[in-house]
Amino acid sequence: MGTTGKVIKCKAAIAWEVNKPLCIEEVEVAPPKAHEVRIQVVATSVCHTDAYTINPKFKEALFPVILGHECAGIVESIGPGVNNVKPGDKVIPFFAPQCKKCKFCLSPHTNLCGKIRNFKTPNIDQEIMEDKTSRFTCRGKPVYHFMGVSSFSQYTVVSDVNVAKIDDDANLERVCLIGCGFSSGYGAAINTAKVTPGSTCAIFGLGGVGLSAVIGCKIAGASRIIGIDINSEKFTKAKALGATDCLNPQDLDKPIQEVIVELTSGGVDFALECAGGYESMRAALDCTTVGWGSCTVVGVKPGDKDLDVSPVDLIVGRTMNGTFFGGWKSVDSVPKLVSDYKNKKFDLDALVTHNLPFDKVNEAFDLMEQGKSIRTILTF
Amino acid sequence: MGTTGKVIKCKAAIAWEVNKPLCIEEVEVAPPKAHEVRIQVVATSVCHTDAYTINPKFKEALFPVILGHECAGIVESIGPGVNNVKPGDKVIPFFAPQCKKCKFCLSPHTNLCGKIRNFKTPNIDQEIMEDKTSRFTCRGKPVYHFMGVSSFSQYTVVSDVNVAKIDDDANLERVCLIGCGFSSGYGAAINTAKVTPGSTCAIFGLGGVGLSAVIGCKIAGASRIIGIDINSEKFTKAKALGATDCLNPQDLDKPIQEVIVELTSGGVDFALECAGGYESMRAALDCTTVGWGSCTVVGVKPGDKDLDVSPVDLIVGRTMNGTFFGGWKSVDSVPKLVSDYKNKKFDLDALVTHNLPFDKVNEAFDLMEQGKSIRTILTF
Ligand SMILES: NC(=O)c1ccc[n+]([C@@H]2O[C@H](COP(=O)([O-])OP(=O)(O)OC[C@H]3O[C@@H](n4cnc5c(N)ncnc54)[C@H](O)[C@@H]3O)[C@@H](O)[C@H]2O)c1
Ligand SMILES: NC(=O)c1ccc[n+]([C@@H]2O[C@H](COP(=O)([O-])OP(=O)(O)OC[C@H]3O[C@@H](n4cnc5c(N)ncnc54)[C@H](O)[C@@H]3O)[C@@H](O)[C@H]2O)c1
Ligand SMILES: [Zn+2]
Ligand SMILES: [Zn+2]
Ligand SMILES: [Zn+2]
Ligand SMILES: [Zn+2]
Repeated sequence: MGTTGKVIKCKAAIAWEVNKPLCIEEVEVAPPKAHEVRIQVVATSVCHTDAYTINPKFKEALFPVILGHECAGIVESIGPGVNNVKPGDKVIPFFAPQCKKCKFCLSPHTNLCGKIRNFKTPNIDQEIMEDKTSRFTCRGKPVYHFMGVSSFSQYTVVSDVNVAKIDDDANLERVCLIGCGFSSGYGAAINTAKVTPGSTCAIFGLGGVGLSAVIGCKIAGASRIIGIDINSEKFTKAKALGATDCLNPQDLDKPIQEVIVELTSGGVDFALECAGGYESMRAALDCTTVGWGSCTVVGVKPGDKDLDVSPVDLIVGRTMNGTFFGGWKSVDSVPKLVSDYKNKKFDLDALVTHNLPFDKVNEAFDLMEQGKSIRTILTF
Repeated sequence: MGTTGKVIKCKAAIAWEVNKPLCIEEVEVAPPKAHEVRIQVVATSVCHTDAYTINPKFKEALFPVILGHECAGIVESIGPGVNNVKPGDKVIPFFAPQCKKCKFCLSPHTNLCGKIRNFKTPNIDQEIMEDKTSRFTCRGKPVYHFMGVSSFSQYTVVSDVNVAKIDDDANLERVCLIGCGFSSGYGAAINTAKVTPGSTCAIFGLGGVGLSAVIGCKIAGASRIIGIDINSEKFTKAKALGATDCLNPQDLDKPIQEVIVELTSGGVDFALECAGGYESMRAALDCTTVGWGSCTVVGVKPGDKDLDVSPVDLIVGRTMNGTFFGGWKSVDSVPKLVSDYKNKKFDLDALVTHNLPFDKVNEAFDLMEQGKSIRTILTF
């Protein structure tokens, strides 16, 4: 406990400016204030949202910033008033707070929380702590937090509504994926789309999020799971996890949505868009059946045009919705998801393709952008 | 029964070409073939979909055509194989078939029916009978049917899956509204949006469909019903039917969606778009609360641009869907709606602002376009 109440100097990856590799730097991490928790990050992975935020097409980004929002760690110290975790606890912090007090938290119909200030660009929300300051300093400058997590630092400070204690024997190098990608894709299928037994599903994008959606559809009892990716290298894993068919739009001589409509005699019951961008959103909506087709949006892609939805797209019986952290109420659900993993309800190991030391964080970004990885686990 | 099996010559309003007044003409109405029903139309009203179909911006329209799809009448004769109605029965025909055999009809999740051939532009579907011919001839030319109904004719022929027997004592000059406008708006609230007790609702467009949605929200127990129209003359009736607030976007100095979000401390639970067009669709989606806001599209407006939906619009917890005939399985539900009216569950009288002889059908269109009527009942 020698560090409690003191500034910790440690290693972090700073994004100084748009579209540049991250720089490994020494940062100062201030002690947690009231209702804050300082965490030693043990394992973190890279999600596409990290990359999108520093993409030049995303105009709203704030710099310098410490990215990273998919991690697991150990509580180093706590500020006054924190009573859900204590030093030494294994924890997962998350970008989706659950304060348990606001009108959203009190409603069973949503997992959003009023602690989010900016619902228009949620990935630059929680960029400072509630007192409007940052706990990070680098080269004398304050550095922005990222989505309330900032896991690309050996130590980070998060609000106590953004963290949950998990089982003492949890494998942090796997359950870190529950901090975003796994939970978002899995929950999109289970909680948001509410995939039903015997249904047909189409998953667009077979990255960490999309493969987790495949897992969710399979567990929900879908009878046909069509995986779609422009990178056919993703298909082996998708099939291993439950995809019954895999299609690459670039190999087809007509639009992917038409192929899926033919394959399913009229369209799928559920489409889950886990790639991001106009084209796959369009295809996801169009490949759902009239009558009851449901299209759930998970992916985002800065700078791409919005989906043009005509009244008739919906009047013929389609529903569109979207998922934020897979619809999970974070504080309540993350510990249960960790237990479910331990009890082998689902497989996280399959999502891990690479393990690297934290210093190679830029390599993890490259592997993702080149489509070579599903998830790279970085350890300190 | 003197006409059975014979061609009937009678009065009808023909739309010969785009954007021109209808012409009252003598038409020949062929006898019903197998599974067809010939109906003497007693009362018909005008819905905005009739006008939109001959609007020059709707490029797909087919001419000549007999419009009209909101009516009630009496069966004149039936073709072989018809067993749900018999000559002399009071009936309501409808544009939403229910064959009870297709995969849609067998599903509890939709009121669409596989008898609809064209889900892309449903208002030019059922433009010919199943044998691909028309039962109408005028001046020696075949005339298209309209949405399987064509009620702007003293006699019409419909498929037996597009008609239901109603109570013998039903007031045809009122229950004709159950053939489209009332059922579509009321059902949009009850069946599609599934408005909940105590909820807040916003209804865009207070015409026949929108006021029926107000009735639906009120019966569903909504605690606040905000009616929005660019024509403030609609507000008295909207308030009489249950609207708690009425707003005219043209009287405001900021966008209507912002005003509604402020008024409701964050947005409504349910928005129902019953006006048609980009602007009110945009406002309807934007005025719903993050977390669980639901936007149901009822209106269409040919030639207007589609709604541009961003992933984040949905990821923050919103749902969009649309309604076709208010989600009612027509054959099963229309007779019940007629009984509900008789039992005073809801008021149709309030929707009727004008009564005219059928020959003045163009005047009924003018009253609608000028915003002076809610529904005009035309009788033969
Ligand atoms: N809503 C949420 O709560 C939430 C949470 C996490 C991630 N996300 C978003 O989900 C998306 C996926 O994230 P990820 O980490 O799995 O990314 P990833 O890079 O691991 O996977 C994306 C996959 O999509 C594929 N792809 C790209 N364009 C495609 C197209 N047009 N058609 C089909 N496939 C295509 C890529 O080849 C890749 O395999 C991102 O947009 C991310 O920002 C959303
Ligand atoms: N989905 C379905 O099953 C279904 C069934 C019937 C009708 N419709 C559609 O519903 C819509 C309404 O039909 P109706 O017969 O009630 O029409 P109507 O002309 O009686 O009423 C439309 C109302 O909307 C108002 N309006 C127009 N633009 C507006 C705007 N920007 N903001 C607010 N209000 C606006 C008008 O002033 C008018 O009062 C039409 O688009 C029609 O085609 C759909
Ligand atoms: Zn993520
Ligand atoms: Zn909250
Ligand atoms: Zn209508
Ligand atoms: Zn059917």
